[in-house]
Amino acid sequence: MAGNRRIVLAGRPEGGRVTAELFRLEEGTRPEPKQGEALVRNRVLSLEPAMRGWISDVPNYSPPVPIGDLMRSFAVGEVMESRHPTLKEGQMLYGRFGWQEWATTDGSTVHRVHGEADLPPSYSTHLLGLTGFTAYQALLTIGQPKAGETVVVSTAAGAVGSVVGQIARLKGCHTVGITGSEAKVRDCLETLGYDAAINYKTEDVAAALRAACPEGVDVYFDNTAGPVSDAVMERLRTFARIVVCGTMAIASAPPPQGPRYNRALLVARARMEGFMVFDHIGKLEAAAKELAQWAREGRIKVKEDWAEGLEATVPHFLRLLAGDNAGKALVRLPE
Amino acid sequence: MAGNRRIVLAGRPEGGRVTAELFRLEEGTRPEPKQGEALVRNRVLSLEPAMRGWISDVPNYSPPVPIGDLMRSFAVGEVMESRHPTLKEGQMLYGRFGWQEWATTDGSTVHRVHGEADLPPSYSTHLLGLTGFTAYQALLTIGQPKAGETVVVSTAAGAVGSVVGQIARLKGCHTVGITGSEAKVRDCLETLGYDAAINYKTEDVAAALRAACPEGVDVYFDNTAGPVSDAVMERLRTFARIVVCGTMAIASAPPPQGPRYNRALLVARARMEGFMVFDHIGKLEAAAKELAQWAREGRIKVKEDWAEGLEATVPHFLRLLAGDNAGKALVRLPE
Repeated sequence: MAGNRRIVLAGRPEGGRVTAELFRLEEGTRPEPKQGEALVRNRVLSLEPAMRGWISDVPNYSPPVPIGDLMRSFAVGEVMESRHPTLKEGQMLYGRFGWQEWATTDGSTVHRVHGEADLPPSYSTHLLGLTGFTAYQALLTIGQPKAGETVVVSTAAGAVGSVVGQIARLKGCHTVGITGSEAKVRDCLETLGYDAAINYKTEDVAAALRAACPEGVDVYFDNTAGPVSDAVMERLRTFARIVVCGTMAIASAPPPQGPRYNRALLVARARMEGFMVFDHIGKLEAAAKELAQWAREGRIKVKEDWAEGLEATVPHFLRLLAGDNAGKALVRLPE
Repeated sequence: MAGNRRIVLAGRPEGGRVTAELFRLEEGTRPEPKQGEALVRNRVLSLEPAMRGWISDVPNYSPPVPIGDLMRSFAVGEVMESRHPTLKEGQMLYGRFGWQEWATTDGSTVHRVHGEADLPPSYSTHLLGLTGFTAYQALLTIGQPKAGETVVVSTAAGAVGSVVGQIARLKGCHTVGITGSEAKVRDCLETLGYDAAINYKTEDVAAALRAACPEGVDVYFDNTAGPVSDAVMERLRTFARIVVCGTMAIASAPPPQGPRYNRALLVARARMEGFMVFDHIGKLEAAAKELAQWAREGRIKVKEDWAEGLEATVPHFLRLLAGDNAGKALVRLPE
């Protein structure tokens, strides 16, 4: 019987701390596709900050991965055999195939077929997948950036943030990125086209924001929450929009203490709204088409941070959570 | 020369504490209307919680009243003499005429002419004025209540909250009021038609909310912020809307600490938005017409809490800030 190596969840983070011991590499059995299913060989695993939430046992918008279960993950896999009516052998699928070598799918775990032959299949894990779509949809529907406005992005060089900053720039906005290393600051300025970039680990964020956003902030695309966001919330312009896309900088539950934003929202008549990509999934393909076109025209650039082989997955994930990634964190599985 | 008694601001609240010593009754001179102005005799002074902000020297959406100046106030006054092209003698005007007996206006301080002969002119200070309009506009545009949804209102028996609760009920919602005394709880249940009412001073608000909103909260109309609101924010349903209409329970600046709401907003994909009535003022008349009709049909009830004479203004205002009012706080000035 053919094998299938897979990574399962072995424990839950204590006090939010994620370590390698929470995962275990197991030898499984290669699944057989039933009637109506396709057999998929994973080529690319996609690592996301949101996985911190998936492995935690706290109320969330995704149910926690059960202990002992395959680690949930987006991936790109090739259809090796199909007993499914529309999925075809050789297609590259982007879906929830988990941290493993082989998967079967009845189509319900597939988010899209990678249809852009001129762009690498890995693009379907970021720009043309859920992170690019998150950036696109959350920025345009909640953020509603208008030409001439100031858009501030936290985790500005991350998978979502890097696309947000570039779309905001395309829309004629003044863009300011907040990020956590000098390398990422350079990335923001030299690759992603931000007008200004702030290293929150070494700079006085409030002072840097005053300098970078002299007229205040119209749109804040927030992936972090916490003290960095507090500084932005003090500079809201009238009718500002705050996209609550992630809360990486704060513990899940109970909520930590921080300054109350109520009055800042009231005085600016600002809107703060949570975004979850699955609420909008029907619009993914249309967005991916526009994002792909921007990529072809060189108007949106992406950066990938690769690790090689299934064994590299967990260490690569820990680097991502530590903020030490340089672009979208991906794992390549050998053919 | 005819007199004009007026109340001026004599000092600013220390640490948010408002006392009678912050105001001074002065004997002024009755103003003469210039060409293009009308002379107004105030009949009703309108007291609002927002005045706490107007007398404070902190960033706000209204500039602070300068020390020594007439206290800013909404009022209803009768046109006694007109040199204005459209304002007519005998009209009852609702406008910003200040805590004084006489005022002149060029029309720019007038919000509406009280045109409902069958309803008392004082109605233009609440149901048909800015508080009723605030309730109507903020609830319907930000709150967007749908039949069957649960709507929670803080300061549920107040000038704004009492109208919010009644409109939400008209729209077929399950309504829950939070208020600060047993008398107001009775008001909520017996007069305002709330399905449930919670006394936040004597009850465990979280437990009471669990009982009153078993399926969670779709719309939270918040006039307070602070610990009471924290309990509501823990019970948001998916796609909840939070109207930030006031922040009475917290100091203006610097913002006090409290639990961070980011994750609650994210998990529920909830929207939290500040509302300021002057952004919407062009829609006041249309709203007032609908509100007046509801009042005539007995579908919205209002309660007025009167004090008599200019000298009673400051003590009545302090009672309002202490939460000891029973309905819209008004001062009647003698003819």
